[in-house]
Amino acid sequence: MTLDPQNSQAVVLLSGGLDSTTVLALARQQGYRCHCLSFAYGQRQAVELDRARENARRYQAEAHLVLNVDLDRIGGSALTGPWPVPKDVPVGRGEPPRAAAEIPITYVPGRNTIFLAYAAAWAEVLGAWDLFIGVNATDYSGYPDCRPEFLLAFENLANLATRAGVSGAGRFTVHAPLLRMSKGEIVRTGQRLGVDFASTHSCYDPDPQGRACGHCDACQLRLLGFAEAGLADPAPYQPGGRPA
Amino acid sequence: MTLDPQNSQAVVLLSGGLDSTTVLALARQQGYRCHCLSFAYGQRQAVELDRARENARRYQAEAHLVLNVDLDRIGGSALTGPWPVPKDVPVGRGEPPRAAAEIPITYVPGRNTIFLAYAAAWAEVLGAWDLFIGVNATDYSGYPDCRPEFLLAFENLANLATRAGVSGAGRFTVHAPLLRMSKGEIVRTGQRLGVDFASTHSCYDPDPQGRACGHCDACQLRLLGFAEAGLADPAPYQPGGRPA
Repeated sequence: MTLDPQNSQAVVLLSGGLDSTTVLALARQQGYRCHCLSFAYGQRQAVELDRARENARRYQAEAHLVLNVDLDRIGGSALTGPWPVPKDVPVGRGEPPRAAAEIPITYVPGRNTIFLAYAAAWAEVLGAWDLFIGVNATDYSGYPDCRPEFLLAFENLANLATRAGVSGAGRFTVHAPLLRMSKGEIVRTGQRLGVDFASTHSCYDPDPQGRACGHCDACQLRLLGFAEAGLADPAPYQPGGRPA
Repeated sequence: MTLDPQNSQAVVLLSGGLDSTTVLALARQQGYRCHCLSFAYGQRQAVELDRARENARRYQAEAHLVLNVDLDRIGGSALTGPWPVPKDVPVGRGEPPRAAAEIPITYVPGRNTIFLAYAAAWAEVLGAWDLFIGVNATDYSGYPDCRPEFLLAFENLANLATRAGVSGAGRFTVHAPLLRMSKGEIVRTGQRLGVDFASTHSCYDPDPQGRACGHCDACQLRLLGFAEAGLADPAPYQPGGRPA
């Protein structure tokens, strides 16, 4: 564990969504100097990278790397492939999937493993020990790489895989401060920390203007969170996208 | 464990070097249908990718993906950065490093974690359970991410991180058949399997014609292996690169 975050650097995985932006705000509040890491991976929702850039500036990131990674050439997900993004599927059951068939097609194989692997690599180069990721309990109802046991296994791996880990000078910690929060709690946390929600993007299937569809899993969870928090979502939606 | 490799698909990490080409030959001999995965990561020795393409064809790979990954923008290694590649440093002690300072500057932070993460992602998409990687004991004298405990930790992670792992239909296995071999044993294994050594590239610092320097760690280990096996290395060397 890092004892003196006032002097600590962190690598923050920043997609540009509601969750990762709230995580960045939390890490900054805790005094971390944040190095933000985003990925261009052929995602439909590449508009999220513009939102990530805005928030990296807003939260005075020490640096912001947007890495090009060829995840789309591996395939297997509606976020990068030719399949339609599912709409109006019930979300947020909060239970782990019992069968592979229950895992949504928007799951990107290996994504969080790959993203955390890059984060650990950059942390090693920076001399940082703290990695922040915005996974949460609602997501891990569907995505295997959002579960607490996955995060612990990654922490173990990072401490074995690196020169930093071998050195004994510290231990990598994966911080997932949203893990046990509901979407409503995330929205309230973001509001308390002054997150500009209009400058966050969650939708898996935005229109060419970057407006949210309101019906994919990510939109449904986001809207659920704002409803739970008793707030209106200031982000732009397509016609018919925002609930009445 | 995979019980029937005659029907099995594997993802083989193929750098184009002596070790990974021998691993590909071993996997083919065991009956695996091989999907080869290589990475363009800003490495000095990008000529190795041409050798990887030749060997993927030679061993009738089902597919060969060369992914562009921005590892060089993370930095921290002489293989991708502005530092000179060390020459004529004693190699092959065969002992794990006792301190971070003993890990060579040619270590690329996070490289094997990132490469295995992509391999597991592709395997999941393909429905494959077997990952092959050419790490070996001589390398793990210097690189933390070539150690057996790292490979086991990755296997554990892959089985937690993926839809495939959650499904219970199988378990990912990381095969590192060279792990306990000396470089001489690797050369003898490759020879037995008909590896075309002239079509493998190991040098970290080739000249513009792709000829090996003969003095970096990778060249020294390779030449040691050929000497142990009592064979001449048919690969091209720069003037002064090949020992008398």
